[in-house]
Amino acid sequence: MQRFALIGAGFIGTVHAQNLAAHPGIEFVGIHDVAEARAQELAARFGTRSLSAAEVFDPATVDAVFIASSTDTHAVHLRSAADAGLAVMCEKPIAPDLAEARAVVDYVTASGVPAMLDFNRRYDRDHAGLQRVVRKGGVGAVELVQMSTRGPSLPPIEYLRVSGGQMADQTVHFFDLLRWITGQEPVSVAVQGSALVDPSIAEFGDVDTSVATLTLESGAIVEIDSVRRTGYGYDERIEVMGSTGLVESRRNRTSNVAVYGAGAVTEAGLHPGWFERVQPTYALALAAFVEALEAGHPAPATLEDGLRAQAIAEAATRALRSGRTEAIEY
Amino acid sequence: MQRFALIGAGFIGTVHAQNLAAHPGIEFVGIHDVAEARAQELAARFGTRSLSAAEVFDPATVDAVFIASSTDTHAVHLRSAADAGLAVMCEKPIAPDLAEARAVVDYVTASGVPAMLDFNRRYDRDHAGLQRVVRKGGVGAVELVQMSTRGPSLPPIEYLRVSGGQMADQTVHFFDLLRWITGQEPVSVAVQGSALVDPSIAEFGDVDTSVATLTLESGAIVEIDSVRRTGYGYDERIEVMGSTGLVESRRNRTSNVAVYGAGAVTEAGLHPGWFERVQPTYALALAAFVEALEAGHPAPATLEDGLRAQAIAEAATRALRSGRTEAIEY
Amino acid sequence: MQRFALIGAGFIGTVHAQNLAAHPGIEFVGIHDVAEARAQELAARFGTRSLSAAEVFDPATVDAVFIASSTDTHAVHLRSAADAGLAVMCEKPIAPDLAEARAVVDYVTASGVPAMLDFNRRYDRDHAGLQRVVRKGGVGAVELVQMSTRGPSLPPIEYLRVSGGQMADQTVHFFDLLRWITGQEPVSVAVQGSALVDPSIAEFGDVDTSVATLTLESGAIVEIDSVRRTGYGYDERIEVMGSTGLVESRRNRTSNVAVYGAGAVTEAGLHPGWFERVQPTYALALAAFVEALEAGHPAPATLEDGLRAQAIAEAATRALRSGRTEAIEY
Amino acid sequence: MQRFALIGAGFIGTVHAQNLAAHPGIEFVGIHDVAEARAQELAARFGTRSLSAAEVFDPATVDAVFIASSTDTHAVHLRSAADAGLAVMCEKPIAPDLAEARAVVDYVTASGVPAMLDFNRRYDRDHAGLQRVVRKGGVGAVELVQMSTRGPSLPPIEYLRVSGGQMADQTVHFFDLLRWITGQEPVSVAVQGSALVDPSIAEFGDVDTSVATLTLESGAIVEIDSVRRTGYGYDERIEVMGSTGLVESRRNRTSNVAVYGAGAVTEAGLHPGWFERVQPTYALALAAFVEALEAGHPAPATLEDGLRAQAIAEAATRALRSGRTEAIEY
Repeated sequence: MQRFALIGAGFIGTVHAQNLAAHPGIEFVGIHDVAEARAQELAARFGTRSLSAAEVFDPATVDAVFIASSTDTHAVHLRSAADAGLAVMCEKPIAPDLAEARAVVDYVTASGVPAMLDFNRRYDRDHAGLQRVVRKGGVGAVELVQMSTRGPSLPPIEYLRVSGGQMADQTVHFFDLLRWITGQEPVSVAVQGSALVDPSIAEFGDVDTSVATLTLESGAIVEIDSVRRTGYGYDERIEVMGSTGLVESRRNRTSNVAVYGAGAVTEAGLHPGWFERVQPTYALALAAFVEALEAGHPAPATLEDGLRAQAIAEAATRALRSGRTEAIEY
Repeated sequence: MQRFALIGAGFIGTVHAQNLAAHPGIEFVGIHDVAEARAQELAARFGTRSLSAAEVFDPATVDAVFIASSTDTHAVHLRSAADAGLAVMCEKPIAPDLAEARAVVDYVTASGVPAMLDFNRRYDRDHAGLQRVVRKGGVGAVELVQMSTRGPSLPPIEYLRVSGGQMADQTVHFFDLLRWITGQEPVSVAVQGSALVDPSIAEFGDVDTSVATLTLESGAIVEIDSVRRTGYGYDERIEVMGSTGLVESRRNRTSNVAVYGAGAVTEAGLHPGWFERVQPTYALALAAFVEALEAGHPAPATLEDGLRAQAIAEAATRALRSGRTEAIEY
Repeated sequence: MQRFALIGAGFIGTVHAQNLAAHPGIEFVGIHDVAEARAQELAARFGTRSLSAAEVFDPATVDAVFIASSTDTHAVHLRSAADAGLAVMCEKPIAPDLAEARAVVDYVTASGVPAMLDFNRRYDRDHAGLQRVVRKGGVGAVELVQMSTRGPSLPPIEYLRVSGGQMADQTVHFFDLLRWITGQEPVSVAVQGSALVDPSIAEFGDVDTSVATLTLESGAIVEIDSVRRTGYGYDERIEVMGSTGLVESRRNRTSNVAVYGAGAVTEAGLHPGWFERVQPTYALALAAFVEALEAGHPAPATLEDGLRAQAIAEAATRALRSGRTEAIEY
Repeated sequence: MQRFALIGAGFIGTVHAQNLAAHPGIEFVGIHDVAEARAQELAARFGTRSLSAAEVFDPATVDAVFIASSTDTHAVHLRSAADAGLAVMCEKPIAPDLAEARAVVDYVTASGVPAMLDFNRRYDRDHAGLQRVVRKGGVGAVELVQMSTRGPSLPPIEYLRVSGGQMADQTVHFFDLLRWITGQEPVSVAVQGSALVDPSIAEFGDVDTSVATLTLESGAIVEIDSVRRTGYGYDERIEVMGSTGLVESRRNRTSNVAVYGAGAVTEAGLHPGWFERVQPTYALALAAFVEALEAGHPAPATLEDGLRAQAIAEAATRALRSGRTEAIEY
């Protein structure tokens, strides 16, 4: 039985609270939030209690901390968990600034506590199925990868302004998937992008529609398109072509119902938003961390993985601005 | 908040215990089983307690009873719930014998307690999507219905010997779906069947592979094939052709991953067994009953629905033996 | 080089003329039609000439006759071909009356001329692919067969009145496919049908929507649904379940174009009519006959095959009227 | 009736000979080839005759010339057709060198003869369906285009050495499709590529696996991946995302047959080679040219279209070598 405390009682904290409460191998010790009332309300819903900041990091009652607070607080909580000798699972990113993130990872690594970054998309049923095919050689040597990450509608401009840009905010999840699927590091990246949905995005140097092209160590080529607003729902798709075949993680549909009419067949569409598609992945990621803790194995997605995805995103952001192919430095 | 007690701690009781514990509008009072140790073990797993038979039907502490005990005990528990004035949700069937089932339904109905039969397949995402299309006229007037219910492997012969036959044990769920999808009553049925998988099934007058053909009030025609052992997984499929189009609830696949090789594409297969496919439906059925209770609405699937499905199964069993088209008497 | 003469310059004669002209191993000698002007016009279009009835059966200039004239004339032309010692390919049916058809087949068989009945659906790309899987044991022993034959719109009532009924006019093609796919003879048949599209069809004892259920020698069960008017295009579908798997010849779509919109994906529909789907099969059937002639092999679909499909249709028509399972007598 | 002469009796000339012979509105005057015996043989097969070079361009007997000879002879034949005042349909490319191609196009255009470049992929059923959806606004304003052009196996190195490179030899067809589908001109292009299949390709500065990223006038972004050897057949796929939806021209399969086994469904694969997929497009392109000639309309794909696709390919080749985004100059 692992005793977990949760930090953060917002939208994503609520998702994690549900999973912490439901996992049979977890004792859900309590929830801390800077807004205490919010922590109390959420705690009541899942039969646990509100914690102070000090209680969260008390090794007498807590084995592991789940950090789901606002992005700018991840680093400090990671350091506290390391100081207290607690296992820690953390939402992305480690820290908005790459240099700071590196410092935190060094600190936590030196402490020796088990730490996992919540790259939940690795637990998408279909992406995981594709990864298994690729890693066991089911399509031969990887030669060409195509990924699409497309949201249904533009987030608010105020959010986008502080998001770090499309590469760091949206594409970064696919930079991680790419490393995980291929087992290779990308060495360079070029990006072409436009602000097609809302030209005001260009004012702060960002884009809403882009294509990143990466080259892997082996010379294999990768294209990742990122879209902020599709008009047709939430769309993720991956295909990996190798020397002997191709494997595809197809667009997900919301049902298997089809209506045949004169001249056309109307089938179920994509999910309306990202949450409807990725919801099952959070519980699976948590279960994987618990399993690793119980077995004494390394976490399936490490802070180092987080750093590397962030380093790719930083190079991609540079490439978008320079218009040139940029080398990726880890 | 509805206070539920559960009767039965076997396989299906365990499924219901999980859903009773997870439903935010349910207080899970406890579990009764003839094997008390089993009830205690299950109760411990879900943070509730073991109940005596008397405690289950105590209106001071219980609002609703969920009957998931062995088939031959459903009738007596239904009567007890009625006597105690408790709402009741019951696994199929009401009673193995149709006449006895009718008597129980009359008794419970007279008592006025809310009662729902757990026709969980009505909560299958795809079948439910198809039903909505049909009932809102999306394919015009129903003219031809095709249903497949096919299990992956033969149940044990000892089970089959007392199961009541393929029509009563397997096809009956689709007799209910048929009534629910079309909003019509079938008036006659003919059946052709064979014991192809295991000829010893024929010794007790049963079959493992069959086609039932029914005629609805409107003259629309229905074919339902039932198979005990497919060799390729658990297979359910429904299509409804109407005067203006066709709607299909397709075979479900376990993922959206496909591997393209020379000359062939290998895609994900069907579910290995029935439980993998229908698992999500139980929680949805329970939630629908709770919603009806809270709103004071009639249960979405009544005991009367159960009787009617059973009456069709009985006529189908007669038809299988007579080789003739049999009228269905409700 | 095989020298072919064609009898019949109507719609289907025109289809065959095109294929006779295009086949590199055929010398297209000419066309006969009772309406000579029509034969002349068609002959001009394909660079051949109009023939008298006598010229068609002249072994000095003709090796093979293709009979595509009206149904009631097939028998007499088959006898003439036999008398002249010419190979003969004939449109279905041999003769509307089964006894007469038997007499013609005996006569032609006794003459020893190569003869093929144009069961063109055996050359449908997908149905043929399914047949190969079944016959090489790809799904094990056949246990359950499901076939759908559904036309887009009701033929004229005057046509239906003299068509011989849905079993003989429409379902008969699938009785042949069934024998060809399974390599087995059906032994009995039951049929349920309704006149749902136009009740006046019932006045002459016919139906427009029906389900035929057959049992094969092995005990395997077959369901064939036949529909005159779908509302959503021309629909053929076959699936064969065996002891180890299932093979499906899916609905054909007119393209691979799909439009993803909010909440729904609109895909290409079915063919508007039968001809759009089956058109490629005629040339393939002709080519198969020519190949058999050149190699001295028996025709891939014999007149005897035609008799047997007709015998099944006759039993099915009896079953529709009697409401009972009827034995099939070949 | 249009009187056509064909130049070239090789593989692609044979394809065109077949279509010229089959088109009801064409009188197939004859065939010229530098190897006269080859012309004679092909002419005999399609009931026409061998022509001298002079006879091909004789306006007394010929209305239109189809140029299907070797690539380096297109330019001279185009000029001859212009001199003779004959309509001309020409295989791609106009001339290997862009400057020379421009000179030829100016020459032919000045002569006023109707001229069409055989961009046959515009007549692919599915790509054409997609184009119609895009051009009538079915997905809103174009924002992101994804195209895949992937051959099954590496052409001989000797061929690749003189092919002009992957952009000019393979991707060029998709540069044309891109302009035709979107109705826009690309303004810049960047390319990343590798020689993964055969490193010796890199010796002459070429690649076998590449991704070209283009920006259209509107800022819309395009990614085109080109692959010389897939290992899983011939693969073309296009999707166009617009401001309101997405339209997809899916991978083509060779049949609609699927086999369901334990754990997997095996479906039909892609075409073994390019010819199996594109074969029907040649006749459709020819028919479109004849229709334009008869109606006095401009050709549906002009020599100018050819120049523009070639200009994009030239910029893409520069971009592949420079590693930079290159402006496209028409």
